[in-house]
Amino acid sequence: MSQGSDIPTARSGRVTIRTVAEHAGVSVAAVSKVLRDAYGVSAALRAKVEASIATLNYRPSAAARGMRGQTYTIGVIMADINNPFYPQIFEGINDGLSDTQYIPLIGLGRGLATIETTIVHAMVDRQMDGIIMIGQRLNTPGLNEVAKSLPIVVVAHHEPTATAFDTVNNDDELGGRLVVEHLLAQGYKRPAMITLSRAQLGRVDVSDRRERGFAKAMQAAGLGHYVHIEAAEAELDDVTATVRELLERPDPPDAIFGWADYYALEVLSAVRTLGYRVPEDIGVIGYDNSEPCSFTQNNLTSIDQSGREIGRQAVRMLLERIGGRTTVEHFVTTPKVSLRGSTQR
Amino acid sequence: MSQGSDIPTARSGRVTIRTVAEHAGVSVAAVSKVLRDAYGVSAALRAKVEASIATLNYRPSAAARGMRGQTYTIGVIMADINNPFYPQIFEGINDGLSDTQYIPLIGLGRGLATIETTIVHAMVDRQMDGIIMIGQRLNTPGLNEVAKSLPIVVVAHHEPTATAFDTVNNDDELGGRLVVEHLLAQGYKRPAMITLSRAQLGRVDVSDRRERGFAKAMQAAGLGHYVHIEAAEAELDDVTATVRELLERPDPPDAIFGWADYYALEVLSAVRTLGYRVPEDIGVIGYDNSEPCSFTQNNLTSIDQSGREIGRQAVRMLLERIGGRTTVEHFVTTPKVSLRGSTQR
Repeated sequence: MSQGSDIPTARSGRVTIRTVAEHAGVSVAAVSKVLRDAYGVSAALRAKVEASIATLNYRPSAAARGMRGQTYTIGVIMADINNPFYPQIFEGINDGLSDTQYIPLIGLGRGLATIETTIVHAMVDRQMDGIIMIGQRLNTPGLNEVAKSLPIVVVAHHEPTATAFDTVNNDDELGGRLVVEHLLAQGYKRPAMITLSRAQLGRVDVSDRRERGFAKAMQAAGLGHYVHIEAAEAELDDVTATVRELLERPDPPDAIFGWADYYALEVLSAVRTLGYRVPEDIGVIGYDNSEPCSFTQNNLTSIDQSGREIGRQAVRMLLERIGGRTTVEHFVTTPKVSLRGSTQR
Repeated sequence: MSQGSDIPTARSGRVTIRTVAEHAGVSVAAVSKVLRDAYGVSAALRAKVEASIATLNYRPSAAARGMRGQTYTIGVIMADINNPFYPQIFEGINDGLSDTQYIPLIGLGRGLATIETTIVHAMVDRQMDGIIMIGQRLNTPGLNEVAKSLPIVVVAHHEPTATAFDTVNNDDELGGRLVVEHLLAQGYKRPAMITLSRAQLGRVDVSDRRERGFAKAMQAAGLGHYVHIEAAEAELDDVTATVRELLERPDPPDAIFGWADYYALEVLSAVRTLGYRVPEDIGVIGYDNSEPCSFTQNNLTSIDQSGREIGRQAVRMLLERIGGRTTVEHFVTTPKVSLRGSTQR
């Protein structure tokens, strides 16, 4: 048996609207009316056509179905496929869709609101039933506009007062606080943080909240005079330069928090390139508890925000919205420290 | 300015086919005929409607356009978003599409031909203009079926005699040979290989060819008695167990080739977990030259197959197919060693 042999094709003589019409003994226009749920279709005609559709196992094309209702496609917009946190979320999305006929199709926003908007247009045009946006750059007014066209659920964007769309997050401010408390408990005295560059990205509230939690916890611990939060671009070179600047200060940090694992893995690289030992000289901690954290060469302590659960909840909420729910829901998971060797000295 | 404020919505009173009809002073049916390129539309009617469409900046929905022609969407099917090689290919895809109006939408096949087939159906249904499949499990008969419905280009699947679809690959057999030649030149005596598990995946010819190149080069070097190619599942636990088995042999290898970087990064982890030093005790080499190779904690020698170029070529070939090319093209890049610390002793 060849795989994929039941793929419909115009050239292979498979079932079309014309086949259905011939089988039912009615006109193509009549079948089209039934498919469109058009006004004035008799119950008898509907029954006859639907029987033929069932017998022939006819699937009207998504374009045709899209004209009249659901396409059973949901869009997922994420920045890129480099971030090792996203596979976790996607596992949860797959969990949530596993007993449904929905198919997720992914667009990559590349961290730019203009590209995200183009993808949203494309998804709206293609009659997708709803969109999950993950770590998007579109701001709240932009999201409200999108929500007028189709249901959306937004992951990693705190907007607890939004009513037009649902959100799923972890408590990022608490996560930032947990980082400081953990590092101090491990005996580190001067934690610093490397965060997302604003210049590149505009206001991204996930990193913002982690920064706020970090700064507040430093103050609460009597370290308000030592709050170093430095922004870097995502590339290894820029993270390395930023780490070097920090470590060449007269009062260098003895621990560095990378705001997300894909930064923290580069911080690990930078710290070792500069000749420091982890965790003895410098502790390193990330955020997301993504898969590479557990590789021996990384052995990276990280904050677990339950990415798979976030993906599951996002799907549940989107399907509820598609099903007609108009009330709003904002779901928040509780972060926790996942301890590994990079902060154990 | 709110971002995304020009997203079309039925509720926002934006331009519809009705607006166009009113502006042009013709019926909705007449506009529809022009949009459909229907028979019997006069040049005067066409000119009037097209002028109104231009003035109003009207975009017919993709579903409507899909009924009559191109949707300017291409599908990309890849196994997952865990593999650090895929971002390279995607950079090339973005390069290739940057001056076009095409949007790529991604489906994840999860290494299963059944899921790939469902996604292909979805993409055909949604009138996508073509599909790029990367490392798919669908076999050649399945791909020939798909190619009856729409243009496809296949990446990482060697089928040099295929005529219904184009392919883009690197020379994987040469790559396997380069691994052995490199390791022997570095002074290693007993290289082994950890490869993709067949049980899980069926015949995947990229790993197959790398194995063949590896085995042939071992024979050519007089090491035909020492060809150890062990299959493992992709998870860290299974790779670690397989590395342990190899290293506990009476004649353990002194170097290990992970068939792709996402395996080799786990091999690195396993070797160090088991207490061996890299590169002194065990050399480790990967394939793909993906971004994490250059992190200090990995410092992983790898075979570069020019992933970005592969992505660019795949797009070029798909757009040519969409444009009407019916001749076949099979494009192959030449792999080369990218030397780092993991094999330098």
